[in-house]
Amino acid sequence: MNQIVECVPNFSEGRRPEIIDRIIAAIESVEGVRVLDRSSDPDHNRTVVTFVGPPETVGDAAFAAIAQAAELIDMDQHQGEHPRMGATDVVPFVPIAGVTMEDCVEIARRLGARVGEELGIPVYLYEAAATRPDRVNLGEIRPRSHQYEQKKADVGRDEKWTPDFGPARVGKAGVTAIGARPPLIAYNVYLTTGDVSIAEKIAKAVRHSGGGLRFVKARGFLVKGKAQVSMNLTDFTKTPIYRVVEMIRREAARYGVSIESSELVGLIPQQALVDAAVWYLQLDNFEPGMVIENRLAGGEG
Amino acid sequence: MNQIVECVPNFSEGRRPEIIDRIIAAIESVEGVRVLDRSSDPDHNRTVVTFVGPPETVGDAAFAAIAQAAELIDMDQHQGEHPRMGATDVVPFVPIAGVTMEDCVEIARRLGARVGEELGIPVYLYEAAATRPDRVNLGEIRPRSHQYEQKKADVGRDEKWTPDFGPARVGKAGVTAIGARPPLIAYNVYLTTGDVSIAEKIAKAVRHSGGGLRFVKARGFLVKGKAQVSMNLTDFTKTPIYRVVEMIRREAARYGVSIESSELVGLIPQQALVDAAVWYLQLDNFEPGMVIENRLAGGEG
Repeated sequence: MNQIVECVPNFSEGRRPEIIDRIIAAIESVEGVRVLDRSSDPDHNRTVVTFVGPPETVGDAAFAAIAQAAELIDMDQHQGEHPRMGATDVVPFVPIAGVTMEDCVEIARRLGARVGEELGIPVYLYEAAATRPDRVNLGEIRPRSHQYEQKKADVGRDEKWTPDFGPARVGKAGVTAIGARPPLIAYNVYLTTGDVSIAEKIAKAVRHSGGGLRFVKARGFLVKGKAQVSMNLTDFTKTPIYRVVEMIRREAARYGVSIESSELVGLIPQQALVDAAVWYLQLDNFEPGMVIENRLAGGEG
Repeated sequence: MNQIVECVPNFSEGRRPEIIDRIIAAIESVEGVRVLDRSSDPDHNRTVVTFVGPPETVGDAAFAAIAQAAELIDMDQHQGEHPRMGATDVVPFVPIAGVTMEDCVEIARRLGARVGEELGIPVYLYEAAATRPDRVNLGEIRPRSHQYEQKKADVGRDEKWTPDFGPARVGKAGVTAIGARPPLIAYNVYLTTGDVSIAEKIAKAVRHSGGGLRFVKARGFLVKGKAQVSMNLTDFTKTPIYRVVEMIRREAARYGVSIESSELVGLIPQQALVDAAVWYLQLDNFEPGMVIENRLAGGEG
């Protein structure tokens, strides 16, 4: 199987496409790397880029992007609604195929060291790459109350903010969080009702914060007249999509409604779909090498 | 997405591995082609080889194999239980990814013309590549009552046996059927009972010949004390695996039993698993480009 790592860097620029063009050109200059998506939000003044590459070079592409962003984006001039702390704000590495989370942690840490040393940008490691428990959640590294301006004041003064790599001194490129996390699946389920309160009750039942499944974030919405349970599945290997949808199905039945359909927002790893097929079909002897395409790709057969 | 055609030629040699080695070497000498499997049966004196390749060269690999087999296998010396008619007996092309059945028909016909002309072997086109309705089913081209010896006597004498390509004269390499068909999925379902009569009744209910689903062949067996519904799914794009298993689930319930597990025998196209996931999850907006791996491969995103 091909080895694929996904990287989803967020940049503090969402209004000048020519800047993003140059960042993307820097990413694409690296061998074996491919940009899948870019999405800019002018209100947040922020752009999310999705690219993939092999473990050997995906970190080099991220480095090229961070270097380019540091050159082109001046955080002293930046305004936007979304919390932000650096020209390159966050850089998560995501294992997609043929690589482990540990591989991604290694890529994140190697990149962090290089960004600190060569670019002089303070780096915080987060999620699976974190070195301290209070840096696992991005929200604790970048709370709304501690963005670029506060970082500038506190890094170097308050030990809480000593970076994992780089100088304890914030320049115009700000600071960057680099980490590793599982693929995130954005997944919505539509119910056969227009009663949004049912979607809200189901969302509360299935989500982690409400006592539900460990790797589910969920909210209820009304979309085009249909009650929708809108979710982020933050680790499909531990809380799989089929278990979530079957739990919603059962909860919906309790209110006398059914699932009308579901939808993906954005991308999904192949593995999440294969896992669902194997579970529903009860394919106890399944191995990846049984899939013709995997045989062709080489590794598993 | 990569374009992948599978080819599953059957050769009339299952006892001398050195012969099969040379045929496989001929296949592997062609650029971009990869042998996935070989399976020899000494009683049938027959070998099935599975290989894949791009539409441009998969036919060249099959030609190289047929030429090599014609050189190494003398049908006058061949004995075996399975019906057979040529050194290379049948050559089906199967669309796996990014190619249509029509593409495979074209590959089959081009190969047929070349085998007839350059190797002087009579060729019959079958299944989706057939030119006559009485040649769609391989069983009508190669009935147990009309194997190599009968072909030798009748081809050139009886118009029924005039080949699609090549001379109306049978040499020591016999005749070859070349065709195109959908991927075949060999799939077994185990029931929570040791009563084989229930598996037999369910097999009869779901299979085409018993009035069931169009592209299902099924039989009931007792395997390790469990009743098993053993199936060949001959066109999963029209009779999908999830519809078959859910029909079996319903029939089993009627006898008071459940599905314990299921198993694949051999390979399955990725698409069959993705189709099952999409159906069970009710993913109405699904497109292949939503799968990260497909984006990376290139075509669909």
